[in-house]
Amino acid sequence: MQLNPTHDVTRKSWLASANKPGCDFPIQNLPFAVFRRAGSNEAFRGGVAIGDQIVDLGALSRTTLLDGLAAQATSACAQPALNDFFAMGPAAWRALRHDLFALLESTPKSSATDVLRDCLVPLAAAEFTVPARIGDYTDFYTSIHHALNVGRLFRPEDPLTPNFQWVPTAYHGRVSSIGVSGQKVRRPMGQSMSPGEAAPVYGACARLDYEIELGLFIGQGNAQGEQIAVDDAEAHVFGICMLNDWSARDIQFWEMAPLGPFLGKNFATTISPWIVTMEALEPYRQEWHRAADEPQPLAYLESKHVRTDGALDIQLEVWLETAQHRARGDHAERLSRTSFKHQYWAVAQMVAHHTVGGCNLQPGDLLGTGTISGPTDIEAGAIIELARAGRTPLKLINGEERSFLADGDAVIFKGWCEKPGHARIGFGENRGEVHPALNAQ
Amino acid sequence: MQLNPTHDVTRKSWLASANKPGCDFPIQNLPFAVFRRAGSNEAFRGGVAIGDQIVDLGALSRTTLLDGLAAQATSACAQPALNDFFAMGPAAWRALRHDLFALLESTPKSSATDVLRDCLVPLAAAEFTVPARIGDYTDFYTSIHHALNVGRLFRPEDPLTPNFQWVPTAYHGRVSSIGVSGQKVRRPMGQSMSPGEAAPVYGACARLDYEIELGLFIGQGNAQGEQIAVDDAEAHVFGICMLNDWSARDIQFWEMAPLGPFLGKNFATTISPWIVTMEALEPYRQEWHRAADEPQPLAYLESKHVRTDGALDIQLEVWLETAQHRARGDHAERLSRTSFKHQYWAVAQMVAHHTVGGCNLQPGDLLGTGTISGPTDIEAGAIIELARAGRTPLKLINGEERSFLADGDAVIFKGWCEKPGHARIGFGENRGEVHPALNAQ
Repeated sequence: MQLNPTHDVTRKSWLASANKPGCDFPIQNLPFAVFRRAGSNEAFRGGVAIGDQIVDLGALSRTTLLDGLAAQATSACAQPALNDFFAMGPAAWRALRHDLFALLESTPKSSATDVLRDCLVPLAAAEFTVPARIGDYTDFYTSIHHALNVGRLFRPEDPLTPNFQWVPTAYHGRVSSIGVSGQKVRRPMGQSMSPGEAAPVYGACARLDYEIELGLFIGQGNAQGEQIAVDDAEAHVFGICMLNDWSARDIQFWEMAPLGPFLGKNFATTISPWIVTMEALEPYRQEWHRAADEPQPLAYLESKHVRTDGALDIQLEVWLETAQHRARGDHAERLSRTSFKHQYWAVAQMVAHHTVGGCNLQPGDLLGTGTISGPTDIEAGAIIELARAGRTPLKLINGEERSFLADGDAVIFKGWCEKPGHARIGFGENRGEVHPALNAQ
Repeated sequence: MQLNPTHDVTRKSWLASANKPGCDFPIQNLPFAVFRRAGSNEAFRGGVAIGDQIVDLGALSRTTLLDGLAAQATSACAQPALNDFFAMGPAAWRALRHDLFALLESTPKSSATDVLRDCLVPLAAAEFTVPARIGDYTDFYTSIHHALNVGRLFRPEDPLTPNFQWVPTAYHGRVSSIGVSGQKVRRPMGQSMSPGEAAPVYGACARLDYEIELGLFIGQGNAQGEQIAVDDAEAHVFGICMLNDWSARDIQFWEMAPLGPFLGKNFATTISPWIVTMEALEPYRQEWHRAADEPQPLAYLESKHVRTDGALDIQLEVWLETAQHRARGDHAERLSRTSFKHQYWAVAQMVAHHTVGGCNLQPGDLLGTGTISGPTDIEAGAIIELARAGRTPLKLINGEERSFLADGDAVIFKGWCEKPGHARIGFGENRGEVHPALNAQ
């Protein structure tokens, strides 16, 4: 791999907050979002996080700090959705990110620094929106640990479907109900069928769950009827956010045979505002494993590049903040911690599989990875796994119990990459709050 | 029901082609599409079919023939997508349709007639596009005859899933690959697993199928977290087109447990250009049946209005035109004929169910009804039913056989309503052509 200056941990920014230990947004990260000043009537526009500030790309596009491809990319980012920027492709993404890196790096104070400083908006003063017009949202199911954890609860004799180790399974999800961190999620009403009953009942979901996932934003797409080869696939991914695939388990399990989840999932999906670029994640690539005694990928999913460094060590945590936590001023409690490196199928394989039949991806499409669970109990990515479908309720430190989510619960995801000799690459936070059902008592 | 002048079969148009027997587009129909002159660089814009002509709503919006709500509606239709018009709601839809009816009706020759005549474009000279920016596409599964026909082939002991008679089952489909009549559909590549084999194989789909469905375009939507009550639901539907849910059965059946169809469906969906309004279909409403010994709908799906006239007698035919038909100048052959009146769940129930958990519908969303099969063998809506999964291949009149679709096949849907004392309300034609797989021999 060529030396990439934006990966060099020794580089620092003239913005002091970007150099603090534990900061999610050092100069080596530079993730993208769409924002405006909270409570304002400003137009939403693109921004890049640095320390405790946002570089306002709308403001930057009205300066002369950048030229060439980076300037064109900045103009594309001055809109309320990043689709046009995504469509420009990796050369443009890289040009803008590298030029921002250069402008933000410690240098003798220059007039450029002053101009850029005028383009900064404090992170704490911003509100965010979904960063692209999402044409289609696809949700994969690519953690074998999640599949086994859930499968063992309901089909202990046969927990894994026969296709799991051959197919990066996925289904189409709902675009209209995708919201950004802070989303208020109303507990859905719906049909469910209790074991042994003769008829389903209508009522508020009694088994509300989260699923911790990552979301991949597609950059350049493919023409209908064409394929994206597995070795070209990652160049079609702009970057990664965190994603909460809220799930109403009672509604889902009753409805899903034979066509899959529908109302059990489509009431809300929450994504984090910041999209971390694939380039920023490069230092955290790892070998992708497939044990010799397991099925090996079919040729269209096989790739030396994937084998060598197709896995990504993105660390993830789920935190629960209950109404009681808030009332007493207590901290939220961590429920689980895992890493994306355990995923059974890699990012490139998801993209190649999605297009193998000619389905056309478009800039701004969103691909969920599916729940991310690791090999141990504490690494489970959904409460149905942690509390074993309610058989072993979680006991919180403050004495509360949870089999599933309660009204007033806030679910908070945190994500980051970190290792010695490398800068921390943070994803920020993804938060969603459970509100009571409509018409419920 | 109030007397609606646009349903009066005695009314005729000054445009002679609209009054011919068998015409799909008499003055009582007035369906909407988005079109331009074929081969031109004109902007796409809305149009209304009348006889063998299209009223160009872009041109009409630049005249002074209409005023008030109808004029506003026409302006909304002058765009390359009808979303803004859909969002205006039933009063606007009705105002425009009724004013067009008045302008097109036989009257002493007037200056208005001359102005309108200048807004006509011959149907034969037009090309069409998908008539709305579709935010989300949902495909239902609401024919019990289709579910039983397919279920009996693969699970003869248990052909119907337990939820079918309780839940208007649905899944989210792919928006990006939806095309309009005339779409060229490349046979998809993908994974499939043959019975008794130890591993799947990669190759061109060997079991390519169509499904005849209707497509419902959503008018006004609902806010996230809110519901549309079953008795309000039809007011949220602008109108209906025909829809071909192309299906790669071998790919679909291998991938679909547990999350439903994905690559088996997402390579292409073909819709007819003309959207017939719910108002034009009113005379073809019928009683909706649910036998006393069957499960009755839960309260949120129960409606006196649905019971009284929730079914729609829309007649549908599937025709197959093979390469040999074309080479020899032979007519296409009809494979099946059925009616939407047999559907197990009604339009209003689909919309109410879709929103019961708070999922937000938006103007321009598309809902497929699922395959429409009737109670007898000839009424089957997919070739997998007609040829019993290849066990009894179809023998065509010209000597060809089909278990599934062959390259070069064109699948043509026709749809219409017709009964004594009422005008024929036609849907036109929906055509799609099968092209060879990529990289196939």
